[in-house]
Order: sequence, then C-alpha cells, then structure tokens
Amino acid sequence: MSKLLAVGTVAFDAIETPFGKTDKILGGSGTFVGLAASQFGVKTGVVSVVGGDFPASYLEMMNAKGINTDGIEVDKEGKTFFWSGKYHNDMNSRDTLITELNVLETFAPVVPENFKDAGIVMLGNLHPLTQASVLDQMSERPKLVVLDTMNFWMDIALEDLHTVLKRVDVITINDEEARQLSGEYSLVNAAKKIHEMGPKYVVIKKGEHGALLFNDGNMFYAPALPLAEVFDPTGAGDTFAGGFCGYLAKTGDISFDNMKNAIIYGSNLASFCVEKFGTERMQELTSDEVKTRLQAFKELTQFDIELS
Amino acid sequence: MSKLLAVGTVAFDAIETPFGKTDKILGGSGTFVGLAASQFGVKTGVVSVVGGDFPASYLEMMNAKGINTDGIEVDKEGKTFFWSGKYHNDMNSRDTLITELNVLETFAPVVPENFKDAGIVMLGNLHPLTQASVLDQMSERPKLVVLDTMNFWMDIALEDLHTVLKRVDVITINDEEARQLSGEYSLVNAAKKIHEMGPKYVVIKKGEHGALLFNDGNMFYAPALPLAEVFDPTGAGDTFAGGFCGYLAKTGDISFDNMKNAIIYGSNLASFCVEKFGTERMQELTSDEVKTRLQAFKELTQFDIELS
Repeated sequence: MSKLLAVGTVAFDAIETPFGKTDKILGGSGTFVGLAASQFGVKTGVVSVVGGDFPASYLEMMNAKGINTDGIEVDKEGKTFFWSGKYHNDMNSRDTLITELNVLETFAPVVPENFKDAGIVMLGNLHPLTQASVLDQMSERPKLVVLDTMNFWMDIALEDLHTVLKRVDVITINDEEARQLSGEYSLVNAAKKIHEMGPKYVVIKKGEHGALLFNDGNMFYAPALPLAEVFDPTGAGDTFAGGFCGYLAKTGDISFDNMKNAIIYGSNLASFCVEKFGTERMQELTSDEVKTRLQAFKELTQFDIELS
Repeated sequence: MSKLLAVGTVAFDAIETPFGKTDKILGGSGTFVGLAASQFGVKTGVVSVVGGDFPASYLEMMNAKGINTDGIEVDKEGKTFFWSGKYHNDMNSRDTLITELNVLETFAPVVPENFKDAGIVMLGNLHPLTQASVLDQMSERPKLVVLDTMNFWMDIALEDLHTVLKRVDVITINDEEARQLSGEYSLVNAAKKIHEMGPKYVVIKKGEHGALLFNDGNMFYAPALPLAEVFDPTGAGDTFAGGFCGYLAKTGDISFDNMKNAIIYGSNLASFCVEKFGTERMQELTSDEVKTRLQAFKELTQFDIELS
C-alpha cells in the first residue's frame, strides 16, 4: 500500500441543474479526489487552502473518512474559493456563472512532512507551476505522478504545462483538451503526441462516453455506466481520478493491467458521484454499493468469445 | 445455423472525405450487411433492386462471397439508387449532396422462395411499409427480426413505423434517433420506451462511441475500436448490423449472452469497414484479420477484477 497525496481545490460550489439548485455546498477537486480515495482505506492527504468562512464540520467529515487534512491551510482572513455553474439539459455542457478565486489566488501548497514520501501524487487541476512546486517538495521521486489539467492552462501557461508534463507519469484530460494539447483530432494520435510530451500513460475522459487509457501500443476502454438520470455531473472527473489513484495506492501495482482495474474503479465511483448534488452521494457511499455496481460494470463490458 | 435474409439498398455511392473522393462506387445497406454476414459463412440472401446500369461484376463479386442475389431485382429500364455525401473533418457529421431514388422509388421487395423460411431477417433502413411487406412474405414467423430505421421515417411515417415495430425483436438505431423516437434524453430511458413499442432488444449505435444493447434490465456496451484514422464511415452502421445478424445466424443462439458476442463481432467488422472507401476493405477482409482484431477488442475491454 502506498500513501496518496492529492493537491487540488477545496471549495464552495453552487450548482444549478434541470433537477434543482443548491446554495453554497462543499466542492473542489481535492475534496472529490479525497472522498473517492477514502473508499480504499489508503492513507490520503489533501493539500489545499480554504478561507475563514470554511466550516470546521467539513474538515471533520473528511477526517472521519480517514482523509488527512493537515495540508489544508486555513487562511482566516480570506474567503474560500467559490464556483457557481449551471448545467444545460443535456448535462454535457455547462455555463460558469461565478468564479471567485479568493484564497486560491495566492495558493502556495505546502506538503505536510509525513506525506513527502507519498508513493502516489495526484496533481489536481491548478496552475502548472503550482503543480510543479508540489513535486519539488517531495523527499524522493514518487512512484507515480498523476496530473489533471484543462484547456484554461493550455491557453495561458502552455510552456509551464509542457515543463511539468515532463515530470508526470499519467495525465488525465478530457477529449477536447487532448485534441487542443496535441493538435490531433483522432484520440489515438492525440495520445501518441501527448505521450511524447512526457506522460507514459494518457487517460482521456469522455464524460458519458467513458474513458480511454493509452500506454504505448496498449489501449483500454472503460464505459461510463449508462444511467437513467445524471443528477449533477460536478466532481465526476475528479472522483474518477480519485478512484483511479486510490486503487493504485491500495494495490501498490502500477502495471498496465492493474491500471485497467483502476480505470474501472474510477468509472464505478464516478457513476455514484453524479447521482446527487455535490459530494452528497460520495459521503454516504458504502463498500457494498461499490461492490454491487462493480458487478454491473462486469456485466456491462465482459463477453465470452473464445479465440482458437 | 440459420439462413439470413437481408432487405436493403444496393446502390451507387459517391463519397467525399478529408482523405479524398470517389466516383460512383458500390454501396447500399443491403450490400454492406451481406458482405459483413459473408464473414460467417451463413446462407445469406439479399433482397433489393438495381437498375440496368448496375454492373454484373458487382453481383458476381457478391455471389463469389456466398451471397445469394436471387432477390436483387434488376430493373433494366431504371437507374440504380444513387447517394452522394461529403463528410466533415470530424467524420461524425456529413452533408448529403445528392439522393436519386431511381428504381428504389417503386421498390416492392420479393422474397425468393428459398429464403421464405429464413430464421433471421434483417430489415434495412427503408419505408416501414416496405419492411412490413417482407415479413408478410415469410412462410413462418422468423426466429429473429432485426430492424434498422432512421429519423427520416420518424418524420414522415411514424405511425407505420410503430406498426412494424410491434413485429420486431431487435431494433438498431443511433443515439439521436433513439432520443427522437422515445422523447427521452437518457439512453437508458429511451431504450425502456422503445422496448415498450415492441422490440425486446434495443441496440443504440453511438458511432465512434460504440454501441449499447438493452434488454429489460440487462445492458451491454461495446466500444468502437479507437482508430488512428477513420477513412470513410459510410456503411459502418450496416456492417455492424450485418456482423451482428451474421454471428447470430451462424451460432443459432439468440440469448442475451450470445447477443453480447454478436455486438462485439459487429463492432469488430465495422472497425474494418471505415478503413477504406466504400466496400473495398470488406471485400478483401480475411478471417485471420478478423480474429486478430477480436483479440484487440478483448484487450481493449476485458479486465480482471475479482469480486469476493
């Protein structure tokens, strides 16, 4: 078993979907990654920053889930990062209504002493220089560095992104972002180009269409579980990444074959995340529910063709 | 082993893609279904109509592949159905440039005597009344009736479509068409509604995102093989359907579990179809190539999570 260090946002979200709308609720990539990873009982530390307005009860909830929050700085004078968005009817596109960076604006992550030897590091979607500063603090090169990013950083900090990518083993990115980063329309060709930028493994997230894992000539595909209703997609990508990292941390096996399983675990957890607003479903999720749905994933994808 | 009867178009296509453009080449849903099914060595009969301009060599090629063309009427006075289209850069959308129905306008399919007892009937994308007239000619209720349709028939002949759907076991339809037919955005809910219209099995084709098979509470998902280049998508859906029906005809097993395999075989053949213009790739395809790529499908989708 490896320690998992996750750097990301811990935030307030206000979400509107065709099913309803929320006040400010708990959100953020670090939160979703932590909650997903907590399903595996691995030692997970989240590095982030919140403001004085952040309820202690949220941190207590995370601690109760076994998430180490020593790396979450509380800036008493500041306000917590706030994002508000509205999903369209198809649930695949959304408008950002409000982005208040607040304490995130000057965020300089500090890795707690007892996580500097984490075997797996998940660099959530932040400025590439911020992501790099986390790697600089590690006492040794982690066994596996996973990085998530988005088009925003390609637009404003592409060079820094390229620099940090050289230090990364796995990149998780959505299909449009993979196309933007590589300049290739075909995802097979896009993965090849991104592979040349540094990451040995390229995970392309396609939302409701699942996720692809590329490694050299190898490919693996996990569908998203078809659901009657997607209630709120917020955090699904981070939950996927948290499940992926959590499973790898638990098993300590970073072979391609085991990454296939990690992708399935990530997809499985993401399928729960979207069933309720924000982190609600992930907070209440039981291991029995996870196991039952893994069986559904098997039935959804496994077939029995004998090749002679 | 069952006989397979496929009703559909046998046509000329002129295709333009970012990779090039063709003159009038062989196309049509009946042609693609027949070529795909010919991979399984099943007794396949195609019912269609062509004009006096249709080269005998095309029919000879089909016969050489083991496809029975007795049901392809040659209307010497008429001209063969002609379709011309241009694909956009993303290869997922296309513009129809020319549609000349020609002999198809008055097409009244006649099922050859020795295919009236076919166990599996594939009703290609034609007017619902034309599809129904084929079923009327069968000497007994086929073991399995598969129907393909499109939004065009929903727009102009919805009532007739509903009538024929009551006589159908499997419908193959793309995602947008499933949404239109059901009025449901979620594909899970769409499949449920379409199920209530008659078909016990609903196959939703998602192009590069694969295909879903629904049957009551059961779901199965087959990805499309990620390809570096999609050269020409024309006929991929029909090839998928032909592979699906051909495998079921060969095995004679129409259980849900075997339909999973059929879906994989269909996806496998479709992945070849798009590699060259028109029917070119399907004409030259060998069983060794099919087998090798089935192995790739296994590697792409199969994982090894033990649930205790």
